[in-house]
Amino acid sequence: MSQMEQMRADVLTAALPYIQKYSGKVVVVKYGGNAMINPRLKQAVMNDIVLLAQVGVKVVLVHGGGPEISATLKAMGIESQFVDGLRRTDLDTMRVVQMVLAGKTNKDLVGLIGVCGGRAMGLCGIDGKMILCDKRPDYEKLGYVGDIVSVDPRPILDALERGYIPVIATVGIDQHGAAYNINADTAASEIAATLSAENLITLTDIRGLMKNIDDVTSLIPKVTLDEVEGLISEGIISGGMIPKAHSCVDAIKKGVRKAVMIDGRVPHSILIEMLSDEGIGTMFTV
Amino acid sequence: MSQMEQMRADVLTAALPYIQKYSGKVVVVKYGGNAMINPRLKQAVMNDIVLLAQVGVKVVLVHGGGPEISATLKAMGIESQFVDGLRRTDLDTMRVVQMVLAGKTNKDLVGLIGVCGGRAMGLCGIDGKMILCDKRPDYEKLGYVGDIVSVDPRPILDALERGYIPVIATVGIDQHGAAYNINADTAASEIAATLSAENLITLTDIRGLMKNIDDVTSLIPKVTLDEVEGLISEGIISGGMIPKAHSCVDAIKKGVRKAVMIDGRVPHSILIEMLSDEGIGTMFTV
Amino acid sequence: MSQMEQMRADVLTAALPYIQKYSGKVVVVKYGGNAMINPRLKQAVMNDIVLLAQVGVKVVLVHGGGPEISATLKAMGIESQFVDGLRRTDLDTMRVVQMVLAGKTNKDLVGLIGVCGGRAMGLCGIDGKMILCDKRPDYEKLGYVGDIVSVDPRPILDALERGYIPVIATVGIDQHGAAYNINADTAASEIAATLSAENLITLTDIRGLMKNIDDVTSLIPKVTLDEVEGLISEGIISGGMIPKAHSCVDAIKKGVRKAVMIDGRVPHSILIEMLSDEGIGTMFTV
Amino acid sequence: MSQMEQMRADVLTAALPYIQKYSGKVVVVKYGGNAMINPRLKQAVMNDIVLLAQVGVKVVLVHGGGPEISATLKAMGIESQFVDGLRRTDLDTMRVVQMVLAGKTNKDLVGLIGVCGGRAMGLCGIDGKMILCDKRPDYEKLGYVGDIVSVDPRPILDALERGYIPVIATVGIDQHGAAYNINADTAASEIAATLSAENLITLTDIRGLMKNIDDVTSLIPKVTLDEVEGLISEGIISGGMIPKAHSCVDAIKKGVRKAVMIDGRVPHSILIEMLSDEGIGTMFTV
Amino acid sequence: MSQMEQMRADVLTAALPYIQKYSGKVVVVKYGGNAMINPRLKQAVMNDIVLLAQVGVKVVLVHGGGPEISATLKAMGIESQFVDGLRRTDLDTMRVVQMVLAGKTNKDLVGLIGVCGGRAMGLCGIDGKMILCDKRPDYEKLGYVGDIVSVDPRPILDALERGYIPVIATVGIDQHGAAYNINADTAASEIAATLSAENLITLTDIRGLMKNIDDVTSLIPKVTLDEVEGLISEGIISGGMIPKAHSCVDAIKKGVRKAVMIDGRVPHSILIEMLSDEGIGTMFTV
Amino acid sequence: MSQMEQMRADVLTAALPYIQKYSGKVVVVKYGGNAMINPRLKQAVMNDIVLLAQVGVKVVLVHGGGPEISATLKAMGIESQFVDGLRRTDLDTMRVVQMVLAGKTNKDLVGLIGVCGGRAMGLCGIDGKMILCDKRPDYEKLGYVGDIVSVDPRPILDALERGYIPVIATVGIDQHGAAYNINADTAASEIAATLSAENLITLTDIRGLMKNIDDVTSLIPKVTLDEVEGLISEGIISGGMIPKAHSCVDAIKKGVRKAVMIDGRVPHSILIEMLSDEGIGTMFTV
Repeated sequence: MSQMEQMRADVLTAALPYIQKYSGKVVVVKYGGNAMINPRLKQAVMNDIVLLAQVGVKVVLVHGGGPEISATLKAMGIESQFVDGLRRTDLDTMRVVQMVLAGKTNKDLVGLIGVCGGRAMGLCGIDGKMILCDKRPDYEKLGYVGDIVSVDPRPILDALERGYIPVIATVGIDQHGAAYNINADTAASEIAATLSAENLITLTDIRGLMKNIDDVTSLIPKVTLDEVEGLISEGIISGGMIPKAHSCVDAIKKGVRKAVMIDGRVPHSILIEMLSDEGIGTMFTV
Repeated sequence: MSQMEQMRADVLTAALPYIQKYSGKVVVVKYGGNAMINPRLKQAVMNDIVLLAQVGVKVVLVHGGGPEISATLKAMGIESQFVDGLRRTDLDTMRVVQMVLAGKTNKDLVGLIGVCGGRAMGLCGIDGKMILCDKRPDYEKLGYVGDIVSVDPRPILDALERGYIPVIATVGIDQHGAAYNINADTAASEIAATLSAENLITLTDIRGLMKNIDDVTSLIPKVTLDEVEGLISEGIISGGMIPKAHSCVDAIKKGVRKAVMIDGRVPHSILIEMLSDEGIGTMFTV
Repeated sequence: MSQMEQMRADVLTAALPYIQKYSGKVVVVKYGGNAMINPRLKQAVMNDIVLLAQVGVKVVLVHGGGPEISATLKAMGIESQFVDGLRRTDLDTMRVVQMVLAGKTNKDLVGLIGVCGGRAMGLCGIDGKMILCDKRPDYEKLGYVGDIVSVDPRPILDALERGYIPVIATVGIDQHGAAYNINADTAASEIAATLSAENLITLTDIRGLMKNIDDVTSLIPKVTLDEVEGLISEGIISGGMIPKAHSCVDAIKKGVRKAVMIDGRVPHSILIEMLSDEGIGTMFTV
Repeated sequence: MSQMEQMRADVLTAALPYIQKYSGKVVVVKYGGNAMINPRLKQAVMNDIVLLAQVGVKVVLVHGGGPEISATLKAMGIESQFVDGLRRTDLDTMRVVQMVLAGKTNKDLVGLIGVCGGRAMGLCGIDGKMILCDKRPDYEKLGYVGDIVSVDPRPILDALERGYIPVIATVGIDQHGAAYNINADTAASEIAATLSAENLITLTDIRGLMKNIDDVTSLIPKVTLDEVEGLISEGIISGGMIPKAHSCVDAIKKGVRKAVMIDGRVPHSILIEMLSDEGIGTMFTV
Repeated sequence: MSQMEQMRADVLTAALPYIQKYSGKVVVVKYGGNAMINPRLKQAVMNDIVLLAQVGVKVVLVHGGGPEISATLKAMGIESQFVDGLRRTDLDTMRVVQMVLAGKTNKDLVGLIGVCGGRAMGLCGIDGKMILCDKRPDYEKLGYVGDIVSVDPRPILDALERGYIPVIATVGIDQHGAAYNINADTAASEIAATLSAENLITLTDIRGLMKNIDDVTSLIPKVTLDEVEGLISEGIISGGMIPKAHSCVDAIKKGVRKAVMIDGRVPHSILIEMLSDEGIGTMFTV
Repeated sequence: MSQMEQMRADVLTAALPYIQKYSGKVVVVKYGGNAMINPRLKQAVMNDIVLLAQVGVKVVLVHGGGPEISATLKAMGIESQFVDGLRRTDLDTMRVVQMVLAGKTNKDLVGLIGVCGGRAMGLCGIDGKMILCDKRPDYEKLGYVGDIVSVDPRPILDALERGYIPVIATVGIDQHGAAYNINADTAASEIAATLSAENLITLTDIRGLMKNIDDVTSLIPKVTLDEVEGLISEGIISGGMIPKAHSCVDAIKKGVRKAVMIDGRVPHSILIEMLSDEGIGTMFTV
């Protein structure tokens, strides 16, 4: 009997209480950033997702598109424009966004999960009119960037009940059938809220919230809702982290148990977060 | 009481026996050609699909992509090459095929069905590893054009049981997770066979098989399997109609009750085919 | 392709939104009058019922007996007596009423539905003690004419869930097992209320409520509950229409969404009512 | 503690093994003769039926009409004619047969079962097209006396599964919707066969088959199929007993475990038959 | 037809209303005393239990151990000590208590039920952590005698739904996994309360509560909760009857419909109690 | 991020394919020997069982009693006698065997599983008459040592379906209700066969079959059914290993996929066996 095998058994045994804790619960993973670009990280995330589903967690994977959209737009000679950090989405752009998100990124993830031995179903907000959107007040400026009106949980629950891992591209639809680009962090937050998720895990390209960005020991492990606005005024939450923080706050306010931002650059950071009491990254709670 | 209303009631009453005949049965519609390009025809097809689903038929919509793929390839500066009538599909081309089929055409159809008051779920062969493919012997020449190894009916049945109209983009996946372009007629035929469909309806841009292409009265309403090869040698079935005819023949051989080629250029040709004893177009049977 | 077929397809397409609106909802049809005597109208009503059931409406058919009871009583030498418009029902009369309603009229309707390709189950208030009655205060005068105490919806729901069209003869039973003659309009109203029906459709031998009985353009399409007593004092609702109007009012008060009186002398008036926004006849609402 | 109570407990205890034996099994009771006329016997039969249903037996009650039909025909001035022991049934007669059987006898039994605390559903062969009939070769002579083509067990099983005691009036229907008078013994036999009943119990007005009709000790407790024709030639089975014996034989041949003829004139003869090893009356077996 | 058989049928018929009354209801039987020692009584109790289960009552059998525990302790040379009427239960004693209750008494009863044709499942409070206990304040004195914290009804309901008679040995478990001896009357009361039982039947070695212990006619048939404390002060409820009375009172307070103490020395006293309106023994009610 | 956490994630990831392989499959663990005596090993086995159940394996734990039986017999002054390696089991001995196995060992294991966060149900062959036995031919010599006649899988499947881990004490019952001591290896083998288990894992106190008992490198990893008798003649399988080997052989012959003997003295040997391709110990296959 090798020591290696004993060690493996010990690790599995140590994981049991954490597995039991999440068994039968919904966990929404917002997937993006480096973890979506680096093939090794991508593989590790898919493995984590399949493992969690296998041990009884109801994992829902929500993703945006990122670089593939820009690359495709560029290849098609459509100029990418950003207004206040949001992509200006005219009808031509929206066609590409939908095509890349729902047809490329989404189905590629479904395929990868299949390779890991899982069974996934790739959906977007158009399927079963799942994510109902509306124009934003700044429609003239931004075009087809939608505000979420409501999320119908049935297509997700149907997939979970039939044993599929739902993989959701964040494209929405309005009542007239027009497709909209929607912010993936917001979508993940709304989906987690609708499903009363136990946990909303957002993969980012940072370690978590840091008091001092240059000091790795200054990670803030836990933030309560009350503290968020203060951290924004102090500049500790800034730039692109502000909407991500707000998505976490919104999820918690709507009944999600906890929302964590973890470092997607660390292989298996999802498993690490879910299988240790302290967790990694920064956790938002009531 | 207007005469119009009486007439409407009479029409509905006359439709009853046909509705009863198909109630609870699976009907696979292979959607393509003009009916997929002309917006008015497109709308009519979606209405027919939603109506059939509403009155108890288990409709499955299978579609290819056609012009949108070529347009996107062109816009992205990727050259379209055809070998023996089949698209040469290198990896870059395959990416576009998947993106357009599964992300654009598919979700647009799902959205249209939603506008008609139906609930659709857009799937492709990658979802739940539904359409398992393999390389073709002429892989060197054609690239990612796949032969279907098997169809897993569960994702389709799951969707039907939960009340969705399954809309299926004909992209397949091999056991290593690679995506493949698959012929939509073949895919529809295999899907119909796997589901033991009552009817496989293929929308075409012709009236049906014609003895004399210039004589509208020479439509062949019914062809038995035995007659097909003869019609090919006579040249009555020729060109692009040959693989379509073979798909119909294969479906029948594998247990589908009947397979019909109908004129997709006629509005509501699906309803007309299903709601009259004589049918329209050409029917293949044992 | 004949124009006729196109027209048929258009009519079916136009019917879709109405079908969707009633899909899965309970609609109670109170059947009586001319539509029950004229064989052609009878056939049309049964066709409408079967069609509605086929497209997903949960139709419940409630009927009285009318002329068949009188004819049988006469044939058996039992004198028909009416007190305040209600049949004086001694024990001998009650035996005939039950026999005709539950054994003749009811099963004939069940048989006709079968001929139209539907599956019906013929029940009366005695089955499963469905319609529990009590003696009326004027028992001495009227005999076995019952007041409904309660309706047990289970036998009806059981039939609907198993895919039968429930056809209900309005015979009730008291707690000692005695059978009672009950007013069919009242019974339909109580059944619709117990089932929280979407619609209670009463077939009558008039066009609807008319301001001026001689002026076909004076039909009152819509009446609110508040207006009913006024219309009675004005004499616009009078005679046999008064209890019918009260049944509609009671149904609405107990939660039925709408109650309509339509002209049973018009073939397919049920379909016409259900498949146009304006409807026909007179609708009672809150 | 009274001796009476001890005795009651002992009796119940003694009944246990018999109850266990029939638990969950289908038992068809063909009800007719004196037990259907004498009110005290009628009450006892209904009690037995309800008790058996309560302890887990799936009882199905099949009945003809007998004297009530003749009385009603007479009251209506329709002459009763018999040809070879079968009622000549013209259309007028058939109307009365259906009316009395399905509307009077049937619903009265349903009501009586309700009074005993049971829940019954009164059906006839028209409901759900349960008993499909055809004209007999001697149609010209006998009119609407039908031969059973097939029995659809679903309406009976639906009722049993929902907890109702099915009470079945032996009226059949042909494929054109015409109602037929059918022999109740034959109907019970066919129903028992279709349901693979454990037991077909026929209530008669005799003790059972007797070697010597005047010697009460000459009861034949058990007859095998092989012996029946012999007993007919010997005259031991004669007259009206011949078709009854044939019904029993047919049931056994089609898979019913045993068929017994018992004396309906003895109160609770059903319970006695089912709760003692020896049984009463005459049992037919393979 | 023997008179005996008629009498048997009459008894069964008379039992029907009582059987209907308890059909589908939970009845908890606390089994102990002489009925557990005398083999003939034991057999009669098991027969009653199987009969009740067969006719549709959801019987739950709860038992302590009594003489077998003392005998085994004695055989193993472990001294039995009692403090305030409760067994002092050190770890060694507890091992024997568990072993005898859950392994001997329990499985013997399960076996006996099997011999009577029933299907039983033998459980104790350790199974599925069904009976959660805690140390008592007087733990130092009494050792492993537990107070019930909560009863998880699922293992009992699972057994009932699958058609088993649950037989429950009154051993509890604390959150650290330690086993506890628990009072069987209290356990039966808590189980009855958790299951919202219709009836809690406690078998005792007395006729019931007696005003004058020497006067058999002084049985108190019915006691309301208000009267209990008075009866205790008067000494009518005394000694070992006090905790039993309190268990009955607690059950009633927590929603059990009635609680009766009956004489376990009378064969079939359970059936007698359940099959007569007056009952036997003493009934506690609100 | 500590290296430890990365390593843990890697181990879990590596376990995924093995978990997927056994997901939804039945694995029977025959528990005995040192692993049942040493508290640390016992704890490790229970953890393994709970972990396997949590990740989707249908684990069934079958155990004998061993030292606790002898100790209790000794404490009660009952002499242990062995005939041909089997315990002579007179009635007094059988009482102790049942009591210890079903009441002590069994419920202790159930309690331990509960402490690990699992939900177990402790059963023996008496429950639901699960393990039906018969006297052996050498009954005179051995007493209540039974031969298994049949295993009813329902109680085990019922427990698995309701989410319990079935823990089974190897006591059997004959048709007269008498309890029997049955060999635990045989019982595990029969249970595995009845459940068509994927794997029968027997915990032993040796490394597996060894060519040379003194040479740790001489472990035989795999034995086919054909080789077993040869290994017995060579003396490589000898003594107490012979019946264990025969139990494995019987299981395989009756359809179990594989049967392995593993070293119960190694902590987590069950996990190690199930989570590596090579396995540990000796595997029996076709």
